[in-house]
Amino acid sequence: MSKLKRNERIGALVKILSDNPNKIFTLNHFTGIFDAAKSTISEDLVIVKKFMEQLQLGKVQTIPGASGGVKYIPFLNKKDTLEALNNICQKLKDKSRVIPGSFLFMSDIIYNPVYVRKMGEIFAAKFIDEDIDYVVTAETKGIPLALMTANSLNIPLVIVRSDNRVTEGSTVSINYVSGSTGKIQTMYISKRAIKNGANVLIIDDFMKAGGTAKGMVDLMKEFDANVKGIGVMIATKEPRDKLVDEYLSLITLEKVDLEEGIEIYPNENIF
Amino acid sequence: MSKLKRNERIGALVKILSDNPNKIFTLNHFTGIFDAAKSTISEDLVIVKKFMEQLQLGKVQTIPGASGGVKYIPFLNKKDTLEALNNICQKLKDKSRVIPGSFLFMSDIIYNPVYVRKMGEIFAAKFIDEDIDYVVTAETKGIPLALMTANSLNIPLVIVRSDNRVTEGSTVSINYVSGSTGKIQTMYISKRAIKNGANVLIIDDFMKAGGTAKGMVDLMKEFDANVKGIGVMIATKEPRDKLVDEYLSLITLEKVDLEEGIEIYPNENIF
Repeated sequence: MSKLKRNERIGALVKILSDNPNKIFTLNHFTGIFDAAKSTISEDLVIVKKFMEQLQLGKVQTIPGASGGVKYIPFLNKKDTLEALNNICQKLKDKSRVIPGSFLFMSDIIYNPVYVRKMGEIFAAKFIDEDIDYVVTAETKGIPLALMTANSLNIPLVIVRSDNRVTEGSTVSINYVSGSTGKIQTMYISKRAIKNGANVLIIDDFMKAGGTAKGMVDLMKEFDANVKGIGVMIATKEPRDKLVDEYLSLITLEKVDLEEGIEIYPNENIF
Repeated sequence: MSKLKRNERIGALVKILSDNPNKIFTLNHFTGIFDAAKSTISEDLVIVKKFMEQLQLGKVQTIPGASGGVKYIPFLNKKDTLEALNNICQKLKDKSRVIPGSFLFMSDIIYNPVYVRKMGEIFAAKFIDEDIDYVVTAETKGIPLALMTANSLNIPLVIVRSDNRVTEGSTVSINYVSGSTGKIQTMYISKRAIKNGANVLIIDDFMKAGGTAKGMVDLMKEFDANVKGIGVMIATKEPRDKLVDEYLSLITLEKVDLEEGIEIYPNENIF
């Protein structure tokens, strides 16, 4: 392979770093790939860092010391983020989405990688400093969003099941009250899923009363895990008092009414 | 904003293209962002194309004509791919994973974005020319892999449910025989999920007899959809005759035996 030029090294650095968010690469890793001196790679990284911030494409962090290196972390660009969330709200306002029971059909949005990868980056950017070990979600509708959040944080996803499945091995279960229906339900998690004392981030697609989130918080106690945050795509405005105290929702759903329409908007307090 | 240098433009081009796999960008899109002439962007792209291929980081395709532009598509790097699959097999060979019933505990692998994003890229690279409209999977364990495949193809994911949920609106259901247990089960899909006559790619984590895959194939007939491919992460060696004719599996599971060990290996015929 012929030696790479600076602009080729820079392109490759951007690709490798941004494909592996929140993963630390040593400079030696790149000297090997590019057959270039450490000082050369350092200079390359200064350039990458500068234009990535200038164009708001992400943040490149240098970690000093023996275990140091460089990593890419997603960046919360306010204009882009609001535009993306407004776009989602616009789609959700379509009255043909109203399902008997005043539910909104959302599967096409919450299963679409184009939307969930953006929202996953938002959650990752918000919780990146919390030293999270696992993203936790309850099946099924929150899984795509939770996976994309885990992807941007470069950490494993844990899925809490609504049935006890043989493939999960020994499980821990908890009963919880679904805030919306008032029914008692059970959730199950594999005993092997989470290391004791870990830091977790709970992610879900939708929060009404917060029963599912509360159930996951309680389940985490079985692992002595620390819930460092709860993030949901959409929270309803009512009831105002949810079963969990603190959570971050990207979008507020105020009203679903076939006559009067659907009131839904991004939360300004994300930033 | 000061004018960008060539190496800065190249870095930004790589970031924007590879963040949006399989999405066509016009050259005008970039002339706007970079405040640069079309001919300059064209020259930049020639450089990007060359080193991305040289370093096997991906493929950058130029699409001529009025609706033309440029797009990034994932590339199947044989060495990296085999290394990644071998690494997964190595982990799965651990005897402590054997669960009563000779199942293998795999949730930590199939829910981990680091593994599923690589496997999603493999499927995307294999099926990129099939003009796929939707990736389809059945809940729950295949969702992360299917989402990452959809992400690399830049198309929506559709999740077939095992229960009839109010939030899916009107559904179409089908009964199918689980090949492994012989039990009759039902799967449900939202009527709004798939446009008539669409091209679909079915993705799942595991195939034994192929009953679930066959169920999804039958369900697709209700939408006059064309099943362009079936991809599974792991297929068991036995039974050799699956209920579906053609499928691509990344890994073969030959034996799970607490005494004799676990035989599992990547499929050479992926390439």
